[in-house]
Amino acid sequence: MNLQSYVCGSWQSGRDAGAALRDATTGEVIAHASSAGIDFAAVLAHAREVGGPALRALTFHERAGLLRALAKRLSELKEEFYSLSYRTGATKSDSLIDIDGGIGTVFVFAGKGSRELPNARVYVDGDVEGLSKGGTFVGQHLYVSREGAAVHINAFNFPVWGMLEKLAPTVLAGMPAIVKPATATAYLTELVVRRIIESKILPEGALQLVCGGLGNLFDHVNCQDAVSFTGSAHTAAQLRVHPAIIRRAVPFIAETDSLNSSILAADAAPGTAEFDLFVKEVVREMTVKAGQKCTAIRKALVPAAAVRDVVAALQAALQKIVVGDPRAEGVRMGPLVSQEQRTEVLARVAELRGETDLVAGNVDHFEVSGADSARGAFVPPLLLLARDSSTARDSRSGGLRSRRDGAALPRHPGCDRAGAARRGESGGLGILCR
Amino acid sequence: MNLQSYVCGSWQSGRDAGAALRDATTGEVIAHASSAGIDFAAVLAHAREVGGPALRALTFHERAGLLRALAKRLSELKEEFYSLSYRTGATKSDSLIDIDGGIGTVFVFAGKGSRELPNARVYVDGDVEGLSKGGTFVGQHLYVSREGAAVHINAFNFPVWGMLEKLAPTVLAGMPAIVKPATATAYLTELVVRRIIESKILPEGALQLVCGGLGNLFDHVNCQDAVSFTGSAHTAAQLRVHPAIIRRAVPFIAETDSLNSSILAADAAPGTAEFDLFVKEVVREMTVKAGQKCTAIRKALVPAAAVRDVVAALQAALQKIVVGDPRAEGVRMGPLVSQEQRTEVLARVAELRGETDLVAGNVDHFEVSGADSARGAFVPPLLLLARDSSTARDSRSGGLRSRRDGAALPRHPGCDRAGAARRGESGGLGILCR
Repeated sequence: MNLQSYVCGSWQSGRDAGAALRDATTGEVIAHASSAGIDFAAVLAHAREVGGPALRALTFHERAGLLRALAKRLSELKEEFYSLSYRTGATKSDSLIDIDGGIGTVFVFAGKGSRELPNARVYVDGDVEGLSKGGTFVGQHLYVSREGAAVHINAFNFPVWGMLEKLAPTVLAGMPAIVKPATATAYLTELVVRRIIESKILPEGALQLVCGGLGNLFDHVNCQDAVSFTGSAHTAAQLRVHPAIIRRAVPFIAETDSLNSSILAADAAPGTAEFDLFVKEVVREMTVKAGQKCTAIRKALVPAAAVRDVVAALQAALQKIVVGDPRAEGVRMGPLVSQEQRTEVLARVAELRGETDLVAGNVDHFEVSGADSARGAFVPPLLLLARDSSTARDSRSGGLRSRRDGAALPRHPGCDRAGAARRGESGGLGILCR
Repeated sequence: MNLQSYVCGSWQSGRDAGAALRDATTGEVIAHASSAGIDFAAVLAHAREVGGPALRALTFHERAGLLRALAKRLSELKEEFYSLSYRTGATKSDSLIDIDGGIGTVFVFAGKGSRELPNARVYVDGDVEGLSKGGTFVGQHLYVSREGAAVHINAFNFPVWGMLEKLAPTVLAGMPAIVKPATATAYLTELVVRRIIESKILPEGALQLVCGGLGNLFDHVNCQDAVSFTGSAHTAAQLRVHPAIIRRAVPFIAETDSLNSSILAADAAPGTAEFDLFVKEVVREMTVKAGQKCTAIRKALVPAAAVRDVVAALQAALQKIVVGDPRAEGVRMGPLVSQEQRTEVLARVAELRGETDLVAGNVDHFEVSGADSARGAFVPPLLLLARDSSTARDSRSGGLRSRRDGAALPRHPGCDRAGAARRGESGGLGILCR
């Protein structure tokens, strides 16, 4: 199967074979993706000249109505999305976050549009402000729709939610979207977009899809467009300095390399409900979507006195996590999205081994349920314990600052680019600093 | 006189002679500015380690109190600032905008801090939001002070206001500032900062001043710092892609090349109060600060039927504008800030002459009151009339779009980089499109 792009009002196949997309569990090739042959200037023009005017003709409430209808329609179709989502390595409950979570986000924006915005095309911000004594010079802030296209470059880990969470506010703002999903899981995004286009709920031009690379699209963006990127800081830094982005002052938003942790307070001692909740949540963070969430924690930070109990509790809980084919009964954690991610995660784990002890999980020896571990991108949950939290302060694994109580807190998270595991690449990894 | 920089708690002279700063009217050298020898890593460290903690220890109300005290103190000293301000080419009423306007801005932020912010160090944004059904996962948005320095790179046209409008919100936010004024008028900023430092109202480290270049400061910024630039789009584009800005995700804000116009509505016919107001405001825009305001208009847009009357009214009004030494009685418009700006403005005017007719002003022959026109950076008010507003649509002078009533409106202002006259460089220039 060759994935198609939906551009300029029709579905187009790439002119060459493009990248092979594989089932995360079996390694089977399920699709090829290529955008070769797409005229990207025409894609932008279609968004600006067809989709934008159609959306801007609607009021916020009318756009919210489109979103509500869209969310309802996608809810009716979601079993089809669940079936295909297994191929990304997602378990049923992983898909719940991506698919139901994504649809829920559309409902939320529909609600915000109806309740918090006027039934108008312009949002009036605050009162008229007098700027001269005689009242001849006054100011009024207005929000109007930008007259360009919103280019959405999305990450592999949430092929549905990642697309819908950007599409919903974009439609509400009266802007057409050009969606470019990460290639590894583009087949699921393509299916959802196909169903959206078939539904005819959005006006033509409001949503275009590019499976494969964005070619020379960046050469054609201008200050009325906006680029919203989710992915690695490395790629974001490259795109952000594109000459057209700089020269034409194109808004460029990037969400990259998030840094999160779970912190156990000193009074949440073993035996308390809070302690049990902490252990449960750390296990959840390590295993849901095999750790491939932007919000997944990189570290669990624990008072020195509680480290032994926390490690024991995590070891016990992690032992029960069944890794394997996400379609199989009882499997709690599927494979990573691709062999490339598996290689990347294992390289990062190897880096960290110099300053940590592995206290749970064994990369070389772990059970895989219902699948061939040599073909799927499996990594078991791994728990690494920092040998010395004070040396972690200036390490590349997060930049920690010790506190007097012996725990540690993340510092300057935005600066951290080479943390324990990059965004969407954590692969079930936890670190404790004592 | 060598301007000094105030860094790391003391006033320092540059190690070399540096740039010569001249009186805009007489051409006399009044100061030299150099930052050679400054340790910029130490400047940032002083801000982060001395100024930042001192400001963050205060509540918003306490910081607002500092601003109120500062504004009062500067009000008492303003005659000294007015005297020196003449050297920038500013008339008394030009200085009113810069000096009283700047002090007024500090009062406004003091008021906002007291009235709109809590008497606390943290701003709580909205209510606690539930993120899980059982109430075990909730979110609360907080604004806390960044732990770095705010680097303010300012334009030459408002040496006082430009500094204070950024300093006031920075202090209120609990951040230390490093101010780098444009070199051409740095002597006035230096005087004001000297009085601020002497007043001891702000805690040490909250305000540092660099007269001359910023050396290698950018190499040392990180994600807790912020850079706020005012000036040309060209320079902004260069600074924005500095490797440290990109790699460390440093917030970079630029205000560049503003695009403003005065638009006459079709019903504001000759003889109405609105028509007279329009003419008065266009003349004001063309002459105040010799056009060197970020908000100065580049164009006056007028319905075709009114062009003849508007031109006649502007010609009559502009004839009464006395150009000359800003200290001299009756002078309404001083020189541009420097000979470099004069050369730049005349080059831009020459560019526009291909598509416009000069209907008021003569660069080669105009009276200068109380000064030597060969020594001062004088340019008379110049009114250029577009020959054909429809051809202006894609020209470099603004990118206009015709409307059915024959007037024209600016389109995609942010994209316009080569307008009639760049930010702070307009030199009393008006264009009419008919």
